[in-house]
Amino acid sequence: MGSAANARAVNVRGAAPKQDRSRATRQRLLESAVTCLAEHGWSGSTVTVVAEHAGVSRGAAQHHFPTREDLFTAAVEYVAEERSRALRELPPRASTQAAVETLVGLYTGPLFRAALHLWVAASNEPQLEPRVTALEARIGRETHRMAVRLLGADEREPGVRETVQGLLDMARGLGLANLLTDDSARRERVVAQWARLVENGAAGATHNR
Amino acid sequence: MGSAANARAVNVRGAAPKQDRSRATRQRLLESAVTCLAEHGWSGSTVTVVAEHAGVSRGAAQHHFPTREDLFTAAVEYVAEERSRALRELPPRASTQAAVETLVGLYTGPLFRAALHLWVAASNEPQLEPRVTALEARIGRETHRMAVRLLGADEREPGVRETVQGLLDMARGLGLANLLTDDSARRERVVAQWARLVENGAAGATHNR
Repeated sequence: MGSAANARAVNVRGAAPKQDRSRATRQRLLESAVTCLAEHGWSGSTVTVVAEHAGVSRGAAQHHFPTREDLFTAAVEYVAEERSRALRELPPRASTQAAVETLVGLYTGPLFRAALHLWVAASNEPQLEPRVTALEARIGRETHRMAVRLLGADEREPGVRETVQGLLDMARGLGLANLLTDDSARRERVVAQWARLVENGAAGATHNR
Repeated sequence: MGSAANARAVNVRGAAPKQDRSRATRQRLLESAVTCLAEHGWSGSTVTVVAEHAGVSRGAAQHHFPTREDLFTAAVEYVAEERSRALRELPPRASTQAAVETLVGLYTGPLFRAALHLWVAASNEPQLEPRVTALEARIGRETHRMAVRLLGADEREPGVRETVQGLLDMARGLGLANLLTDDSARRERVVAQWARLVENGAAGATHNR
């Protein structure tokens, strides 16, 4: 993008620094929205709370995001994209277990907590529901693509697509199990065992050909 | 409380019918609480809403359940126990796939939706959190026992415990994926493939002994 370089090149009174400030404000709002959603849930996360957390006026927040729904769906999408970008730069994992660990790790941080609050709120809020459904589908497809790459999976083999999907469902379930208590010790054992089963399954498929 | 006076007036008809009526009222409240939680989420589920749904006065509801937390944790526990009782009467499943289908089915109905709303609300409400954490642990242990029995699994074998746990995590993730959209077609394919992986894994373990 080179926005930092452009900003330096353009005069102090020029448009570029203003755009940079606007972009930085927008980014701070998005990151604050995810933090607030993860910490306070949907009912505790208003535009005012997020603006305060981001150190931005309520008016400025509303300039960027006219409605509460705009702000929070954009926030979850933004953070999911940031995460995807970071993961795309990772090489395929050395072992199935390392890949499964990375994938499961996606579901134990603040982004998953924030997304979970948004999904659950959407199930009872008609204003939110269609937007979150579309967002979930986009994030789901992108996560699946990343999983296939990290696992080095060949989806032309029968059953491989469903193996990967089931792994991501398990990762989501492990994220839910981690919501109220630290589930990391149990999670580690489950990940080790299922990495073995997935490998055995793949070996079995090869063997039966 | 008016309901106490009414109860005294009715007492002439004997204690046993009164106890039966009280139990029936309690049960109606518990079932209504799960329905309301599944349909309206935590923020939309007050004692008043549940009492109305159950056709019971607010006073009578509060006689049975002094606080909102009492009512909803009791409701999820009650319905989970009813479900366990029904499952305990099932014979071990004829096939791994049938067992996995039954287990996954536990996470796609109104009880899972209600529990999910309660878990997520508890993550931001200190009054609710310790009770729901304890409840989740009890339900989790009971579900694990049922899974072991339905799958005919031998937990003395290394890895089998983690295989069963991972399956239940996957089932929970599938429940979450079903929250906003009907995910049944995809779910069916994932269940078929994971049942195969569980069987391959068990066969692998036997083979390697």
